Parts: sequence; structure tokens; C-alpha cells
Amino acid sequence: MSNFEDINLGLDVNGSSRNDPRNQGPAVTRRGISCAEDISLAASSHPEVTIGTVYLVGAGPGAVDLLTLKAHRLIQQADSIVYDYLVAPQILALASANVERVFVGKKGGGFCCPQTRIEETLIRLAREGKRVIRLKGGDPFIFGRGGEEAEALASAGIPFEIVPGVTSALAAAAYAGIPLTHRAHSSAVVFLTGHEDPNKPDSAIAWEQYGRLDATLCVYVGMKNLETITRRLQAGGLARETPAAVIQCATTAGHRQLISTVENIALDSEHAGFGAPAIVVIGEVAALSDKLAWFAAQAEVVPQ
Amino acid sequence: MSNFEDINLGLDVNGSSRNDPRNQGPAVTRRGISCAEDISLAASSHPEVTIGTVYLVGAGPGAVDLLTLKAHRLIQQADSIVYDYLVAPQILALASANVERVFVGKKGGGFCCPQTRIEETLIRLAREGKRVIRLKGGDPFIFGRGGEEAEALASAGIPFEIVPGVTSALAAAAYAGIPLTHRAHSSAVVFLTGHEDPNKPDSAIAWEQYGRLDATLCVYVGMKNLETITRRLQAGGLARETPAAVIQCATTAGHRQLISTVENIALDSEHAGFGAPAIVVIGEVAALSDKLAWFAAQAEVVPQ
Repeated sequence: MSNFEDINLGLDVNGSSRNDPRNQGPAVTRRGISCAEDISLAASSHPEVTIGTVYLVGAGPGAVDLLTLKAHRLIQQADSIVYDYLVAPQILALASANVERVFVGKKGGGFCCPQTRIEETLIRLAREGKRVIRLKGGDPFIFGRGGEEAEALASAGIPFEIVPGVTSALAAAAYAGIPLTHRAHSSAVVFLTGHEDPNKPDSAIAWEQYGRLDATLCVYVGMKNLETITRRLQAGGLARETPAAVIQCATTAGHRQLISTVENIALDSEHAGFGAPAIVVIGEVAALSDKLAWFAAQAEVVPQ
Repeated sequence: MSNFEDINLGLDVNGSSRNDPRNQGPAVTRRGISCAEDISLAASSHPEVTIGTVYLVGAGPGAVDLLTLKAHRLIQQADSIVYDYLVAPQILALASANVERVFVGKKGGGFCCPQTRIEETLIRLAREGKRVIRLKGGDPFIFGRGGEEAEALASAGIPFEIVPGVTSALAAAAYAGIPLTHRAHSSAVVFLTGHEDPNKPDSAIAWEQYGRLDATLCVYVGMKNLETITRRLQAGGLARETPAAVIQCATTAGHRQLISTVENIALDSEHAGFGAPAIVVIGEVAALSDKLAWFAAQAEVVPQ
């Protein structure tokens, strides 16, 4: 790992913002080039270079062996890897020693690199002729802003590909033993974000409506909003005794899970110290985990 | 491929049922053992054998390189592979030459091997000490009956694992350039089956309710019911001009896609000759495919 070019985009190693007046010096961490310097080098300085392709790649839920073969190959062939905190170090370690790594996202909903800056970086690297891998946790088109990045690339005339991945809800359900659909219980499954962007004009998900569906609900990283979410689902008609599961760090050595009800899951998971990254699965099928939790039987299980 | 043991479970090569009086002879196709013969050999005839593990494995959407590394390894290490028509021949070809292959599902909603027979087969093979791979198109817990098979294995005391896969909706969206979620358009995505089991007590999906959600809707293999489904979504409040896409054989050489509206998608896709396996994506995000359809630009595109 020590031979990696490690570029930190708009953040120093401690994650504080470059807007912080204490950080007016170069934002370079270890060796590398700051984002601002890079942007000044854009397109026109490499007129002779063939434009590279940007691959928006789902890195899956965390376990290396849940990468796709295509993602694995692309990581090994990359010139530059642009990644955020949801991508496991073990996955980055698959890249060749001299690959350029650009970190663009901080854990926990705090400051992160502005989306436009990420898009500019992808475009710049491609114009330098590089094969760029934009690695995203899970799947790039499920709560990954892959759509925005693809739009920016298309507008800039940069060739790109989208490589789907195993999204976290699928992995959490598989490893927790929760069939998201089941002929006896559920003919539909919904993926929802529990981290709504407050800047979105119509930001509020109509949670009450989802409480009326006879569907399995999967909420992504909704721990801090879980009490509100589960209350609104019940207000919409979801029975309070509906089974609910929370799965943290699914598929990894840190995998933990807990089964409760929609009424109690927020409090129970808070008491048990659950935090992001987590998936909450709500619906009759969550109760099947009692019988089907094959992975927890091999790992740590949180006592209920 | 010619060295494979190829066992056909309850079907002959032409797919006709063994209940058909014309098929009262052995149901063996090429070389292999019929399902009925096998069941008579169950558990007790192998008392000394260590019970094998059954892996319920998502084979992804079709393209070999969208298999996970774990699925790829398990296929290569399998003693027996139990599979249905959604699993591509190229994926089966990854197995070793002497693996036992058991076919359990026929295309197109016609006769297929009864679910209990599939479960009995998995249990029997495990009790023979085999490492059994149950390969399913997409993800085993998304419309794959993986839950029922896992329950049967748990009840029988057979060790099992669930290996998630890239479900078809994720792959179709990625290859068609449709971000299923997008900060500007959709904070939720729903996967629904367009092939409801008529034997399910409450079989009807309340499609009208899904027409009221501000969510992306993905309908699995709903071509023959698509006119009814889209009519009911509109009856529920979905605007008739809402963009809708149909993607057939996503990620493979046969990939085709067509963009229309929820009002016209059923007729347009019928006129263009679309059929299963297909995914229909309904929502504002479907329109982004006009700009982001990177894969269709490399392959055949259906004229609109």
C-alpha cells in the first residue's frame, strides 16, 4: 500500500475541510497533487492524449469476494481510482502498486468533497488519457450519485461505462437470512434512503405511504432517522409488531444483526450500539432470519 | 461440455412433463439419473458420509463477468450444480468437466419442476456429501424462491450459505443508463414481480398504490401482464407521460432496450417484439437513458 499515489481531494488526512481557515496551505496529503492544482491542468494541457474511459463501478457490500469479476479486472487495470469511505481497504489493495488513488468522501454524513468537484476530477483524469475507476460502495445507481456523475461525463463527451454491483440491501439480506421476496409473504421490495438530502426541493419521502404497501422495505443507513421513519411507517398503517431487522457491516468480519419489531427496532438498535453502515429490513420476511441466519451462526451475534 | 453429467429433473429434453403418459419411461436425458430414482437413495443409504453444504448462489444477470468472485469460485469447486433456464450456458461452462448438472426449470412460465422436488433434490445431494451449488439467475432472494429453499434446508439440518448476486434490475439499469435513484428525481426504488403466483392467497399486488409513490418502479418479466400493470399504475395516479423503459437480455449480446412512456410502453414493446427475460423501469429516471445508454451505443439499439 505504501507505494500508492494517495491524493486527498479537498480534505486533509483528518478529514477537516479546506474551507477551514486553518487549512489554507496545500491540501496535499502524503504525496500527491491537490484537487485545485489539478483542475488548472485540465483538458487543453494534454491535447495529444487519447481520452480515457471512466468506469463507474459498484464495489459491492464490503467483502472482497462479492466484487464482480468485471470490477475486479477493472480495478487491477486502473490508472486512477477515485473512491469514498464505503470502499473497503482490502478492495483498494487489489489495485496495482503504482495506481493513483483519489479519496473523495468522508464517513458519517459530515463534510465531503462537493459533487461537482468529484465530477471535474473524473473528467480531468480521463482527459489525461487515464483509465479511471470510480469505485462506489454497493451499486453505483442505488444511492450512489452515479447518475449525476454519468450525466457529467456524458455532457463532457467522456466515454464511460456503468458496472453494477451487489447493493448493500441484497448482501445484508443474504447474509442475515432474510428473503426479500417470498411467495408466502412479499411480492415487492423497496429500497429507500434514510439520509435524505435536505437540499432536495421535495426532500421528504412520504413514509406513511410505504407503511401501507404489502412490501419488504429496506432502509439504507437510516440509523439516526430510524425512530422518525418507523413512527411514520406505523402512522401510515404498518402494524407495530411487523418484524424488523438491522444489519451492520454486512458480509464483513464486523457483521452484526438484530431482529426486533418496527415499533422497537430504533430503540433496540440504539441500545445495542448499532451504527452506519447499516441496513434496516422491515417486513414479515425479517422474522425468517431466526431460522436462516447462517452467517451470524459463523460470527458474532448480538444477544437480544 | 460433453463430459458433464447432465440430469434432467422431471422433464425430458423437450421440456414435457413426466406426468405426461407418453413419458412413463425413465426421464433420463443424455446420461444421468432420474429424479425419482435418486429420491429412493436418500439419506439413510449414505450414513457414513459427511453432509455437504448447499450454496444458494446468485448467478447475476447473464454476462459471465457480472458473477461475483465468490460465485465463480463456488461454481469451479462444485460437485453438483442445480440450475434453471435463467442461468447462461457460459456460466455453467465455468464448472469442472465432471460436475453433476441438474436442470430444474423451464423457460416461459410453462411446466417447471415442482418446488418441493427441487428442495428434496438439494437435500439428497447434500446428504450424499456433495458440495451443491443451487444457481439462480440474478439474486437468490429477489423473486428466486431462495427463501423457500433455505427454509427447507434449515428444516432438514443441511448446512447452507446464501451468495447474493447482481439482480437483473440493477444490471438492466446500469447497462441501459438509468440511475434507479437520483437526488433530483427519486429517493426510492421498488422491485415488483409481473408474474404473480396465482396460487398465492392474496396474489394481487396493489398496483394502484405503487402508482402513487414518487419512486422508480422495476417490474421483473412482466411483458405479458404489462398492459394491465401500466393501466393500473395510471389508475393509481401515475402520470401517463411518465418515462418507461423496457430492457431485454440485459448485459448480454442480445441486449435490447426501448424508451417510451407508461401509457405506451406495453404497446410499443409488443410492436418491437420484446419478450422475457426483460425488466421494465418506470419513473422520471428512465428518460436519462437517452443520454446515458452507453451499452446500447456499443450494441444493437431498437429503433423507436
